[in-house]
Amino acid sequence: MTLATPLSETGHSMLERVQNLQGKICDAFFKFETEKSFFKDPWQRSETTGGGLSCVFEDGSIFEKAGVNISAITGNLTSETEKMMFQSLINQRFKNSMQLENATYFATGISVVCHPINPFVPTIHMNYRFFEIQSGNETLWWFGGGTDLTPYFLDLDLITQFHTQLKTTCDLFDLSYYPKFKDACDTYFYLPHRKEHRGIGGIFFDYLNTQSNQHYLDFASACGNCFLDTYLPFIETYQAQPYTQSQQEWQQYRRGRYVEFNLLHDRGTHFGLKTNGRIESIFMSLPKRVIWTYDENKLKKDHDDLLKLIKTPKQWA
Amino acid sequence: MTLATPLSETGHSMLERVQNLQGKICDAFFKFETEKSFFKDPWQRSETTGGGLSCVFEDGSIFEKAGVNISAITGNLTSETEKMMFQSLINQRFKNSMQLENATYFATGISVVCHPINPFVPTIHMNYRFFEIQSGNETLWWFGGGTDLTPYFLDLDLITQFHTQLKTTCDLFDLSYYPKFKDACDTYFYLPHRKEHRGIGGIFFDYLNTQSNQHYLDFASACGNCFLDTYLPFIETYQAQPYTQSQQEWQQYRRGRYVEFNLLHDRGTHFGLKTNGRIESIFMSLPKRVIWTYDENKLKKDHDDLLKLIKTPKQWA
Repeated sequence: MTLATPLSETGHSMLERVQNLQGKICDAFFKFETEKSFFKDPWQRSETTGGGLSCVFEDGSIFEKAGVNISAITGNLTSETEKMMFQSLINQRFKNSMQLENATYFATGISVVCHPINPFVPTIHMNYRFFEIQSGNETLWWFGGGTDLTPYFLDLDLITQFHTQLKTTCDLFDLSYYPKFKDACDTYFYLPHRKEHRGIGGIFFDYLNTQSNQHYLDFASACGNCFLDTYLPFIETYQAQPYTQSQQEWQQYRRGRYVEFNLLHDRGTHFGLKTNGRIESIFMSLPKRVIWTYDENKLKKDHDDLLKLIKTPKQWA
Repeated sequence: MTLATPLSETGHSMLERVQNLQGKICDAFFKFETEKSFFKDPWQRSETTGGGLSCVFEDGSIFEKAGVNISAITGNLTSETEKMMFQSLINQRFKNSMQLENATYFATGISVVCHPINPFVPTIHMNYRFFEIQSGNETLWWFGGGTDLTPYFLDLDLITQFHTQLKTTCDLFDLSYYPKFKDACDTYFYLPHRKEHRGIGGIFFDYLNTQSNQHYLDFASACGNCFLDTYLPFIETYQAQPYTQSQQEWQQYRRGRYVEFNLLHDRGTHFGLKTNGRIESIFMSLPKRVIWTYDENKLKKDHDDLLKLIKTPKQWA
């Protein structure tokens, strides 16, 4: 594996933090997983354009499938598709007229998706990333990311605690962040055809660049660093909780929504597929075992509370 | 359930044939399935716009999930999205400048998707449909449809027989049909991100209207009517074939490709979702139990023959 070389000091710092966080999360997961279910997969796009390190747990003691992945890639925008995508993004999002004819980009980030075996432990998704683009003397950078939770059964105390921890972290940087990014999360993870949100939300932000790069670097790192504090309580509380076959079926059926969201709506998935990205990394987020059934009503009974919450998000913190 | 009233004689005939075929296929399936796994679901869009009849077998003796569905719907193109979609379709496909301001449409069709339990029995998809649109004195109609097979293990004789039967049916109408529609099928059911076709093909056609309506009515009916002849041999040969857990995992993993195709690429799925279609009908095609794994190489070994065939389609008949 060769991680790409960042274009700036901020890129270097972000890459370093992303690598440290990956190590920290894997170490924490190794407290209950073993090498047997672990697959460490370093990959490279090409000799000069970087790659990543995927750390995957599959059919372990806690995780049916979990990925803790980092990547650091660089390159020139070569294809017309890529150029057009970035040009319109830059024009629209940043009102910036930067020309991308000879542009170089660097992107790094960490992406974590955990699909646990026990249906009482929620699925979680976390991703923090930095993007920079350089063309002539001009540079443009931004941060994006988020953490969101998809429970199959409700533990209102732990969910409140999850949101409170995200709020506490956000509040250290700007009191407007949590409410804004909580709403953005509810808006983003929405399946219009189901009239449902993917889960009970969290925070979501993208294209942050109006404050200093150090501010966002610290903010994204702080969000990433509170991942284990937000998630481990669910594992600790429920890892040994007995469950029935029908509770497991409910989990696998709800995971269908996860797949629907990621394939039909997720911007990252579509971006990856359009730009000929690495399939294993793009689809790493998909759960392992999934069910689709025709008559959902049979499964839905006894789950009114969860279904109500994913129809209408609530304020948790 | 109220099926919509067709706008033309052809529409009436197609609806009648579609209803008969649904009955015939369900009767054939009841030779090995029982009422216990059967769910008959008549549905209605609204009092005036028609509906359909979904016949679903789930967790039966042969089928993990199979749908034999018909629908007959009518309406005015109301939303701007619908109008634009049809206007551009009509302009581009038919070089027709028909105005859709006060247009009425009627659509009917049969759609069958079978996901069997036994991994040696392939998944099959079949759909034949008629669409007509009337605006003032102008009318426009077309036929579409196809049958395609997605095996998990190869029985070259039966697959050749499957294609030969489709060819024989096509040849009764026009010798150019099978080669043309076989190629169209290979082209349509392609997953660019996997560099794979969904299965071993079949036939696929759409927007047929240059011959007489009777010609296409008979052609679509003949294709629909040979469905059981093409598919039952696989069931009869393999329904009692023992299989291992790893063979079943291979099937469930390959079904992931089916989901990827339907959610990422299928025109029908996207059309249905965009026009606020009935979710149960749109997603009826999805298999029940599906697996995504990170390291596909573990599963792929011993399956070179199938993988080669779905990379590069071959001539079967």
